[in-house]
Amino acid sequence: MLRAGRGPVERFRERYGLVAALVEYEDKRQGRRGASSLDALTALVADDLECVNRLIVERMHSPVALIPQLAGHIVAAGGKRLRPMLTLGAARLCGYRGVRHHHLAASVEFIHTATLLHDDVVDESALRRGLATANSVWGNKPSVLVGDFLFSRAFKLMVEDGSLKVLDILSSASAVIAEGEVHQLVTSNDLDTSEDDYLQVIRAKTAALFAAAARIGAVVADRAQAEEDALGRFGLNLGISFQLIDDALDYAASQAALGKTVGDDFREGKITLPVILAFRRGSAEERQFWRRTLETLDQHDDDLGRAQGLLERYGALTETVERARHYGTLAKDALGIFPDGPERRALVEAAQFAVERAY
Amino acid sequence: MLRAGRGPVERFRERYGLVAALVEYEDKRQGRRGASSLDALTALVADDLECVNRLIVERMHSPVALIPQLAGHIVAAGGKRLRPMLTLGAARLCGYRGVRHHHLAASVEFIHTATLLHDDVVDESALRRGLATANSVWGNKPSVLVGDFLFSRAFKLMVEDGSLKVLDILSSASAVIAEGEVHQLVTSNDLDTSEDDYLQVIRAKTAALFAAAARIGAVVADRAQAEEDALGRFGLNLGISFQLIDDALDYAASQAALGKTVGDDFREGKITLPVILAFRRGSAEERQFWRRTLETLDQHDDDLGRAQGLLERYGALTETVERARHYGTLAKDALGIFPDGPERRALVEAAQFAVERAY
Repeated sequence: MLRAGRGPVERFRERYGLVAALVEYEDKRQGRRGASSLDALTALVADDLECVNRLIVERMHSPVALIPQLAGHIVAAGGKRLRPMLTLGAARLCGYRGVRHHHLAASVEFIHTATLLHDDVVDESALRRGLATANSVWGNKPSVLVGDFLFSRAFKLMVEDGSLKVLDILSSASAVIAEGEVHQLVTSNDLDTSEDDYLQVIRAKTAALFAAAARIGAVVADRAQAEEDALGRFGLNLGISFQLIDDALDYAASQAALGKTVGDDFREGKITLPVILAFRRGSAEERQFWRRTLETLDQHDDDLGRAQGLLERYGALTETVERARHYGTLAKDALGIFPDGPERRALVEAAQFAVERAY
Repeated sequence: MLRAGRGPVERFRERYGLVAALVEYEDKRQGRRGASSLDALTALVADDLECVNRLIVERMHSPVALIPQLAGHIVAAGGKRLRPMLTLGAARLCGYRGVRHHHLAASVEFIHTATLLHDDVVDESALRRGLATANSVWGNKPSVLVGDFLFSRAFKLMVEDGSLKVLDILSSASAVIAEGEVHQLVTSNDLDTSEDDYLQVIRAKTAALFAAAARIGAVVADRAQAEEDALGRFGLNLGISFQLIDDALDYAASQAALGKTVGDDFREGKITLPVILAFRRGSAEERQFWRRTLETLDQHDDDLGRAQGLLERYGALTETVERARHYGTLAKDALGIFPDGPERRALVEAAQFAVERAY
């Protein structure tokens, strides 16, 4: 099996740099300012997030010691807590001042964590955010079951909150996520997957939970349908751009920054937008290369490097980033109905971060 | 790897017959009548169950074709629909005459089906109810994800019903089930597992869903707490006896009748009550045998036959059946607060069936 050759990846970085470099280049070319971060949103919801983190630790408890061990491993691996922060930030934007959103944000993070555990089993991943995945430490079996446990606990948190509307939004999102994951599995190794198919997959497997996370911020604040819908659109478009960048980074990021193995998607034969674009634009011989490596998974040492070279030749990464920027703009515009202020600015910057991040 | 030697199993059946034969023998000895079935309950809820089955087919639909294919495979493999029938029967016993219980019974079956899909992945099983398991046909990946899908759909069905109390009962049960599954995984291959540990595992992984299924029958009929609790106890004890018999059958049933491979638990090194009893009562040399086969999984062709012989020598299967009968009696007695009538008699017979079944 092909391993992430340090050579080609490094060579690629020297030649083309990170996606971040692409973004910076595009920004300079078009006179835009880059270097966004999650700092504003993080500062805005810092106290709430602390409560959410406490709740997360509390609710992953079980007398069966392996459960908090394994769940703690993946939750502590940290991640950005982007989804619960969207719930908290959206609630703030809607003027909510209670504590109900803590339960709901924890519930969102549990659903996300359960999905990660099952994803890593399905993808046979070894690294997640720079740490060994739970399945590589404890095996697949407890990862599947602890995922189920966290998923059930997510629903218990919602039930305690008592809003049927929230339960409806998050149970629907969960079903859509699972549907998207199966859809992705079916399109794996199939280069005839269209850009539309791809978009449908990432809307479902990634963006649906971002949309739900932001939407329930409005629900908890009991705001009008128009504002709820606006936050739903904000989350959905942010989620799409987040996943587009993820798929670009999988061919471009440095392993240390991304915290996952570079070239994972390539090795698994996942059909992501960069590949779809390069395949469509490639010569007959290049298409043969893609079919051999991604459809029959017949991969050799230099193949990842060649793939990265082809993506570069056809501007596939730059264009994926441009698509991400498009959805990022839609996300920001969706917030237009809310008054300007620190809350809206923090969320707008989060959408920008989803596009410009290098990790 | 050891395969189910047809020889030893057949020899064992010739010598000792099925668990059913054990039960029959005990019945005769103690002057009890055997030969119970699910017929009365099946007849009582036949129309409702048809609605539930339609709902199940409808709600497993997805534009991603693999989902209904795979879900249909496991749902159609049929099984006894015992859990949803408990919900329907309990609702009838409580005088309920509406249609809400259809949604809830379908939800219970979806939770059960999701659990089965994940169980078969965890246990690496090849057969379920006489059919190839989904994981052996489609692989582990879609089985994990379709399980998640069904689980989410189960919650959507509950949300549509709109009872927070039902949502609480079933989300709690789901968390307990996952906890029990992890607990079972941890006690696998550990012969120092006590009978108490074992009981805790089967209460959680199996009996909790039976308890919830019966309990929500009272909730939907809006009955007093005492009746809700009585049905919960009925389901719990029925579930315990059901699992005890399952564990006895794993060493005794004919493959055709049970619809799963005989000796699965043995091959996986699962520590079930028959083994716990035989191990405790065995000689030092016999304990070595159990440790070699179940802890280090060093198994040879004749080992299953020898295990069955040891279970017989120490009366471990007969005694497991006797334990099951004890819990079956508790289940029946729990219904004592309800007036006699066809509904109660049907449920009592279901509890008896859980003990006396040979499949």
